[in-house]
Amino acid sequence: MRDLLSTEGLDRATLESLLDDGEEFAEVLRRPIPKVPALRGKTVATMFFEPSTRTRLSFERAARALSADTLSFAPGTSSLKKGESLKDTVLTIQAMGADLMVVRHTSTGAPWRVAEWTHLPVINGGDGAHQHPTQALLDALTLRQRFGSLDGLRIGIVGDIRHSRVARSDVFAFSTLGAEVTLVAPPTLLPPDLTGWPVEVARELDDVLTELDAIYLLRVQSERGGASVFPSVQEYRQRFGMTRQRLARLKPDTAVLHPGPMIRGVEIDHEVADDARCLVLNQVANGVAVRMAALFQLLGGERDE
Amino acid sequence: MRDLLSTEGLDRATLESLLDDGEEFAEVLRRPIPKVPALRGKTVATMFFEPSTRTRLSFERAARALSADTLSFAPGTSSLKKGESLKDTVLTIQAMGADLMVVRHTSTGAPWRVAEWTHLPVINGGDGAHQHPTQALLDALTLRQRFGSLDGLRIGIVGDIRHSRVARSDVFAFSTLGAEVTLVAPPTLLPPDLTGWPVEVARELDDVLTELDAIYLLRVQSERGGASVFPSVQEYRQRFGMTRQRLARLKPDTAVLHPGPMIRGVEIDHEVADDARCLVLNQVANGVAVRMAALFQLLGGERDE
Amino acid sequence: MRDLLSTEGLDRATLESLLDDGEEFAEVLRRPIPKVPALRGKTVATMFFEPSTRTRLSFERAARALSADTLSFAPGTSSLKKGESLKDTVLTIQAMGADLMVVRHTSTGAPWRVAEWTHLPVINGGDGAHQHPTQALLDALTLRQRFGSLDGLRIGIVGDIRHSRVARSDVFAFSTLGAEVTLVAPPTLLPPDLTGWPVEVARELDDVLTELDAIYLLRVQSERGGASVFPSVQEYRQRFGMTRQRLARLKPDTAVLHPGPMIRGVEIDHEVADDARCLVLNQVANGVAVRMAALFQLLGGERDE
Repeated sequence: MRDLLSTEGLDRATLESLLDDGEEFAEVLRRPIPKVPALRGKTVATMFFEPSTRTRLSFERAARALSADTLSFAPGTSSLKKGESLKDTVLTIQAMGADLMVVRHTSTGAPWRVAEWTHLPVINGGDGAHQHPTQALLDALTLRQRFGSLDGLRIGIVGDIRHSRVARSDVFAFSTLGAEVTLVAPPTLLPPDLTGWPVEVARELDDVLTELDAIYLLRVQSERGGASVFPSVQEYRQRFGMTRQRLARLKPDTAVLHPGPMIRGVEIDHEVADDARCLVLNQVANGVAVRMAALFQLLGGERDE
Repeated sequence: MRDLLSTEGLDRATLESLLDDGEEFAEVLRRPIPKVPALRGKTVATMFFEPSTRTRLSFERAARALSADTLSFAPGTSSLKKGESLKDTVLTIQAMGADLMVVRHTSTGAPWRVAEWTHLPVINGGDGAHQHPTQALLDALTLRQRFGSLDGLRIGIVGDIRHSRVARSDVFAFSTLGAEVTLVAPPTLLPPDLTGWPVEVARELDDVLTELDAIYLLRVQSERGGASVFPSVQEYRQRFGMTRQRLARLKPDTAVLHPGPMIRGVEIDHEVADDARCLVLNQVANGVAVRMAALFQLLGGERDE
Repeated sequence: MRDLLSTEGLDRATLESLLDDGEEFAEVLRRPIPKVPALRGKTVATMFFEPSTRTRLSFERAARALSADTLSFAPGTSSLKKGESLKDTVLTIQAMGADLMVVRHTSTGAPWRVAEWTHLPVINGGDGAHQHPTQALLDALTLRQRFGSLDGLRIGIVGDIRHSRVARSDVFAFSTLGAEVTLVAPPTLLPPDLTGWPVEVARELDDVLTELDAIYLLRVQSERGGASVFPSVQEYRQRFGMTRQRLARLKPDTAVLHPGPMIRGVEIDHEVADDARCLVLNQVANGVAVRMAALFQLLGGERDE
């Protein structure tokens, strides 16, 4: 594996190897000194052309837990404003001595272009409504920890599928790992063409609620156009929100996941967010662990812990 | 001590233990390599919901001098903008592996709420016009270095007491350490109720000027409403500014302190700011030292220097 | 050498010593673990009153490759907004324990004022249209690597000389190192007075194109008033742009340099930027190396690699 750009096309062995390393690093993170020297002297560049404090901090935390340095490129006050091309920015950061690039961008495909330009490994930290592979890894690790395996697991992904790179990344990862994925959304919030997606579709959450082992709630991505297709937040909540009424109907061992940030009262009620079945904080913790795994594998670190 | 939220209620032994450790770390900071491995592998999260470069840098410098990593949460481009609750933000940073949180917030009490939500130690880095305990520690350390002890010291705190978390923090710390504190301000710049404050009050700086061992000048907190109560900066300066005329009348060993940033020409004249009796730079240096002490005590670091 | 403020007045021995160390650190940067402990425990403060992601990251990368900590002062949300003077800001950062200051400022001379106020070594990271000495060092190192020496080299600096601190820094460094420098610009883009500049002047790029060993292209500094003196970008490109037509006429071993960020299609065509003779990425890589050399020499690091 040279880059980590997408979960689509990743085979099961590769995914499981990343989860295995993630599991191991999750253990490292629980130690009194949660740090290994595996990537000492390496520099991880985070290039977030679309800002995201949460994901950037998670990658930086992962880098430092591996003893790598970070180089945080902030486009706000940068050369791009002066007219530099994205390609020249990328080659400049490479020439400064970065060893790997994490790229987040509003445009679909941007990390692929970066990977063509640079000889460094690239991790897609989220591109438009397309892919966000480390999110899928942390989601899969969280489910594997909870259920032992994803094989045969029935997972519903609920809400604004169309504008969600999380949904797209999860669908392919979960399916390759053996789960049966159901998209739960009205047609307006589904991608126009689902050819090649290994999924079933349900129109209403209530139709499948009691059959699911895991419910993956998405945020209404108002910044990517997701808000306009519903007449009101109330109506969204009524049909697709994980309300406390629906919580009461769940099987006792059904897991609830959410990529964060959660908007309580919209896609998830307070009672659900605070319920033991909601694994959102496990997801955050596993985010650091799987990002350590991705950095470690792509940079070929020495396992001299 | 689990958290460091307020100087009100801290007993003398706790305060002095922090000052003792601060003194020791001030010595470490004067070494050629001013760094100890005490908190290696720990992560200090600075969560400044109210921005402050100065205080954040001081905490980060303290963390690094103890070999800890830092995780700097910047609300500007964060999940809070997308509708996440403060509680979920706090739990997310905790789940990422932070070991301690430094919280600055515009709202009084916010660090207490954070301390309820998280199982991590919390340091109040300033909340509204309420408390800023590490400021009081650095002020107390500066006075102790200068006078040997605060016992019996007469300290005047001058200016906009009402809007000042520094004043509130200092009053309780100085008093517990044995000093006699006089607030010097017009009624409009005093808190409406001084019940429980171990202080005397003077209306005019000139009434007490020559009796004080230390004069603590406050900044006019225009961003918290302090500017409107005076007809003009000139009138403020005339009655409460530390002018060069007043400097000439001071006892030769009176100390002048200021929490910074100083607005020269308003609360302090150039000649005073540059006078040897003005300890503002000692305060800044001690800021790093007492923050090291607070981080060290709250994280139970090993003293393997 | 106490500070590195300007290339004007630096003697040849000093320049060559910095280039020699830069060469050595460039070799360190090519190692598998590109890091030496030379400045462990030291703190490099970057104080960029004029924002610049590229230069700040280069200095921070240099500091970390020497195992120093960094303290990044961002004026945007700082005490300066509250009315603090530049001097007090500088003394505050010094009191926090910085060991060296890198200062970038929109005003000519600001780093000299900082150097008067602080007892720390100061590096000018760019002041107005005046000086940017580490840029000249990286340019000189790049030329020395390419040609073995600058002695007798014919170097043309092309474009907006008047508003360029890069040009001013390069002229004096290149000349001291033995090169013959020709400024290529219309009178409107030249400084009003060239007394004391060790240069020749050419009005048109085509007049000197085939005689030069190295062509140094400048960016049109629209943010410092450079855009208004030309009727159009097209006319600028026609007379002073390094077009592919001009590339075809160059001697096969002529080097093309640019300080970055390049504006492709204005001062440099795509074909030129991507040609092997264009050394812009060598310049970026050497930027980290010469900044390591400057930090190392000014902080008197131990060469215990």
